[in-house]
Amino acid sequence: MGVFAAIIFFFLGSVKGFSTKSEPCTYSQGKLCKPALANAAFSTLAFLLGALTSVLSGFLGMKIATYANARTTLEARKGVGKAFITAFRSGAVMGFLLAANGLLVLYISIILFKIYYGDDWEGLYESITGYGLGGSSMALFGRVGGGIYTKAADVGADLVGKVERNIPEDDPRNPAVIADNVGDNVGDIAGMGSDLFGSYAEASCAALFVASISSIGINHDYTAMSYPLIISSVGIVVCLITTLFATDLSEIRDVSQIEPSLKRQLVVSTILMTVGIAMVSFFALPSEFTLFNFGTEKAVKNWHLFFCVTIGLWAGLVIGYTTEYYTSNAYSPVQDVADSCRTGAATNVIFGLALGYKSVIVPIFAIAIAIYVSFSLAAMYGIAVAALGMLSTIATGLAIDAYGPISDNAGGIAEMAGMSHKIRERTDALDAAGNTTAAIGKGFAIGSAALVSLALFGAFISRAGINTVDVLTPKVFIGLIVGAMLPYWFSAMTMKSVGSAALKMVEEVRRQFNTIPGLMEGRAKPDYANCVKISTDASLREMIPPGALVMLTPLITGTLFGVETLAGVLAGSLVSGVQVAISASNTGGAWDNAKKYIEAGASEHAKSLGPKGSDAHKAAVIGDTIGDPLKDTSGPSLNILIKLMAVESLVFAPFFAAHGGLLFKFL
Amino acid sequence: MGVFAAIIFFFLGSVKGFSTKSEPCTYSQGKLCKPALANAAFSTLAFLLGALTSVLSGFLGMKIATYANARTTLEARKGVGKAFITAFRSGAVMGFLLAANGLLVLYISIILFKIYYGDDWEGLYESITGYGLGGSSMALFGRVGGGIYTKAADVGADLVGKVERNIPEDDPRNPAVIADNVGDNVGDIAGMGSDLFGSYAEASCAALFVASISSIGINHDYTAMSYPLIISSVGIVVCLITTLFATDLSEIRDVSQIEPSLKRQLVVSTILMTVGIAMVSFFALPSEFTLFNFGTEKAVKNWHLFFCVTIGLWAGLVIGYTTEYYTSNAYSPVQDVADSCRTGAATNVIFGLALGYKSVIVPIFAIAIAIYVSFSLAAMYGIAVAALGMLSTIATGLAIDAYGPISDNAGGIAEMAGMSHKIRERTDALDAAGNTTAAIGKGFAIGSAALVSLALFGAFISRAGINTVDVLTPKVFIGLIVGAMLPYWFSAMTMKSVGSAALKMVEEVRRQFNTIPGLMEGRAKPDYANCVKISTDASLREMIPPGALVMLTPLITGTLFGVETLAGVLAGSLVSGVQVAISASNTGGAWDNAKKYIEAGASEHAKSLGPKGSDAHKAAVIGDTIGDPLKDTSGPSLNILIKLMAVESLVFAPFFAAHGGLLFKFL
Repeated sequence: MGVFAAIIFFFLGSVKGFSTKSEPCTYSQGKLCKPALANAAFSTLAFLLGALTSVLSGFLGMKIATYANARTTLEARKGVGKAFITAFRSGAVMGFLLAANGLLVLYISIILFKIYYGDDWEGLYESITGYGLGGSSMALFGRVGGGIYTKAADVGADLVGKVERNIPEDDPRNPAVIADNVGDNVGDIAGMGSDLFGSYAEASCAALFVASISSIGINHDYTAMSYPLIISSVGIVVCLITTLFATDLSEIRDVSQIEPSLKRQLVVSTILMTVGIAMVSFFALPSEFTLFNFGTEKAVKNWHLFFCVTIGLWAGLVIGYTTEYYTSNAYSPVQDVADSCRTGAATNVIFGLALGYKSVIVPIFAIAIAIYVSFSLAAMYGIAVAALGMLSTIATGLAIDAYGPISDNAGGIAEMAGMSHKIRERTDALDAAGNTTAAIGKGFAIGSAALVSLALFGAFISRAGINTVDVLTPKVFIGLIVGAMLPYWFSAMTMKSVGSAALKMVEEVRRQFNTIPGLMEGRAKPDYANCVKISTDASLREMIPPGALVMLTPLITGTLFGVETLAGVLAGSLVSGVQVAISASNTGGAWDNAKKYIEAGASEHAKSLGPKGSDAHKAAVIGDTIGDPLKDTSGPSLNILIKLMAVESLVFAPFFAAHGGLLFKFL
Repeated sequence: MGVFAAIIFFFLGSVKGFSTKSEPCTYSQGKLCKPALANAAFSTLAFLLGALTSVLSGFLGMKIATYANARTTLEARKGVGKAFITAFRSGAVMGFLLAANGLLVLYISIILFKIYYGDDWEGLYESITGYGLGGSSMALFGRVGGGIYTKAADVGADLVGKVERNIPEDDPRNPAVIADNVGDNVGDIAGMGSDLFGSYAEASCAALFVASISSIGINHDYTAMSYPLIISSVGIVVCLITTLFATDLSEIRDVSQIEPSLKRQLVVSTILMTVGIAMVSFFALPSEFTLFNFGTEKAVKNWHLFFCVTIGLWAGLVIGYTTEYYTSNAYSPVQDVADSCRTGAATNVIFGLALGYKSVIVPIFAIAIAIYVSFSLAAMYGIAVAALGMLSTIATGLAIDAYGPISDNAGGIAEMAGMSHKIRERTDALDAAGNTTAAIGKGFAIGSAALVSLALFGAFISRAGINTVDVLTPKVFIGLIVGAMLPYWFSAMTMKSVGSAALKMVEEVRRQFNTIPGLMEGRAKPDYANCVKISTDASLREMIPPGALVMLTPLITGTLFGVETLAGVLAGSLVSGVQVAISASNTGGAWDNAKKYIEAGASEHAKSLGPKGSDAHKAAVIGDTIGDPLKDTSGPSLNILIKLMAVESLVFAPFFAAHGGLLFKFL
């Protein structure tokens, strides 16, 4: 954080040679704006605030989750309904904490920055974009580092424990079991939380920035200016009402009610939020205002914005339900994959990959329609608020997502504490529903990342002062094709990282089994802490190359090739990365649930493939192991790739516009 | 062909309402050009000629290959050197046949069309583009249909023969063995041949079309106009000289000399061709001429074009060598994948996928640099001739590529004919080298497809009369993101197609083993013809959905959404498809050679993983089977996706420009 803060300050400060003189404003003609050095300082400050908020949210989220999982196990003694409420409420606490925290710190920052900036809203909201960058940089640690952490521990624990030593999952004799449980929290709580926090912070900053250079910002209409923040506030209230449907207005009596109850949360929050958006759009916005649309002006009506936010919201629901269709074993796609295990692991992998590829179709059309409508109605401001619409129910999304690892760990605790088989069965039922909701959460995260990146991309273009990004110029086209390559480079890195980190874990677990006498017999305790340390060290070390790729690409491209090539890179990595991310996540989710389908043996068809240990089940286990890094590391990490490169470009845009493109200038 | 010819005639004829009146020319101001109806008729004719030439080349190529493989087996009795020369010369015959045929028919068509068109070069070269479309449409059958054919037979034969019945590869008792051998010819000879023929025809047409609306075309400089054709002619002569290096100037005495000898072909032809390009550029072109660059004019010098063609040529070499590095088991990437088989099939698949992702980096940079240089120097004409540069050594490329299946089948014939073990060893050595050259051929095919599509894309833009393709308009952006999704949709289809076609083959092979008495004992002959029929029928039926996706996407997008969205779709599918194609081909090639590495056991490391039948080998076999559809069906088929959509858009551009975008007009 410190190093990157220094880089930000230096790069932005150098735009006007660290001058402390006031400059004429770019959009508010005839007025004086604050010096570039002040913008550099406040951007740096906003960056630090965003990063700290993200860290704090992740820290508190993990605290909550680790308190909650033991309580869920204890409640499971009383029944599945009680356990569900505990797990769900804990998830909700984390969801609300994150949504509220993000909004509060952003709001306070604006208020405080305004004391200095006064009427210079251009500078104010330009420096506020640092907040998004801060949130997103920490997501790099949460998603990429967390993803490597959790899968290194998971794969390492499984390869030695399940395969070599033949002891069950979550067995306390396995030295990596604690690291594995910790990993669930790191990857799914801190990783997912920081990812969505980053999206939220970036979407808000992009919307605010675009609004600040519209007629709203120039006329200093503070209520309309705060439209993105009000949408998010209403979202929190809507989510608060929505949770009542799961915890107070209905009761879980049977295992089969868990998944529908969680899915209902999404529908209820989406419907209520639509009403909320309508109200905010009509009360907070003037009936018409003007946006700057890459050099031209565009008149926008308040009901246009209602459609923008709403279509983002509903696109999120469509993505969520499509993800569920392709990854839940209640439907035919996953059942087909399970069936292909009959002819071995090879056909399982072929069908799984094909499923992942196919699962991108509907989400991409949903995103494309959302983009077309919001882009047409309100240009880049429309895209930004569409992203905010998709994220407006973030509290509910995070609640049902965080519910997954809490239930998962509750099961682990039950196993380790030697509690009765009945309790383990109840926590397993909670966990199974959590798998699907985790997949839905990933779908949301990717969808919102796509919209957010596009909004940031648009803001970057505005700020870099270019009016077109024409594919038919060599500078842009090479950016496009190289950008489309980056997700592959990045995925190659993250997948290899998981592989080598898992290998280190395997060695350590083997070493402990071989050198600690009485470990297999349960007479001696393994050295859990060492495994946790190995996962931690490996993930921090292994995230450096992919992290460097993300952080350096915009800096190098912008400095050497200039803003046009950088625009191409951003567009290319966005359109290509979304596909890789969705297909990787869904392929992995489908393999996981195909394995669970065979294990559960709930239908005639599933029984014919099982039981555990059959050839088909073995093939399914291979698919599941391949899917682990795809769905929990390389896939979701791509969200960070596309968002972080975009927000970094936005923050550094003034520098690139002033000093970038050295190589082309030299040629 | 008939149906599509009718569609072309109807769509293009309707542009000016089937008028038979001469029109004022678009670029040659003040002159009259031929009526749109004539252009429609000649485009249709050119389409038919291109398609027939492609069919004829594929037919003759397969004839040559099937004559050649038995001869190679017989020569193998005399020694590996003799066998090599037979296989290589046969490949060369096929390579020269295709390159010469393609050029000859194109040249004759131009001469004949000119009788009608006279001085109207705009119309002449506009209708000639139908030739490229014809070549490419047949490639759809060769690549997609052929890819499904070969892998259905291969996977079907292996799953029952090797796995269930435990009989060796190419055993004549296996009913699918003939279908498998036929498949090698269909996929690698007809498929690869028609793919490269399509690229060649399209690159030539794109270059001719762009030149026809430049100052060269307007001033009727016929020699300069024929520059693309002269480059290709010189390429044939250069390749002819190059083959002498393999067959006459040096002699293969040892197995280890085969691969270097084949690789040397690439270097020699590239170096000689560089000289050839220089000569043609200085003698055929005026020292300066003017190109139309999307609404602006651009002055180009003849040495600019030398650089354009040369950089395409050398980019091809870089792609070829990178492909070799990532797929040959002489280097560490494949050896690492083989090593990962120690911990099972899952790690093998993870490392293989990561290798494929990583292998896109260098080729994409090579393509990007080639695009930047040729685009900057000579706009879209530069791209088209860069593609022609990469394809100028097509005869050599096809020779070393066709050499692979010929050697492969020679081994099959030796096995089936019960010839001595020694002969089989010699043909196996030929085949091993053929695996690497086949991978190189695929790399070339993809690289040239990328350049060709971009050239066609540029020609489409010119012909559709738009001057910018701005990513920052919603119409273009949704095209871009949906286009980037298409390779995934297409791959999902082709992979599923292989899966279900293979399943049908498995059933038939099982049925024959169960119902034909004495088959396993070798007393009765299996019904080979039925397996061939199943592969044929399945491939023709299964290629309909992916074929429809390719053929209908430009028509639907252009008609409903207009040329801007279509431009986005083309750019998106190009930049995303190249990555998917390269990574799929290389992942598959790496798995294949990792398995061969373990089987051959040539080093200490390889021995520690083997022998055949070890756990690591079993894991490698799973990887190889997954790689089969990736490297021989879905990967290479993407070349067709990106090229065919681009050339179809180019041919239909006048229609889309006049009547397209109905949906947006309606909204």
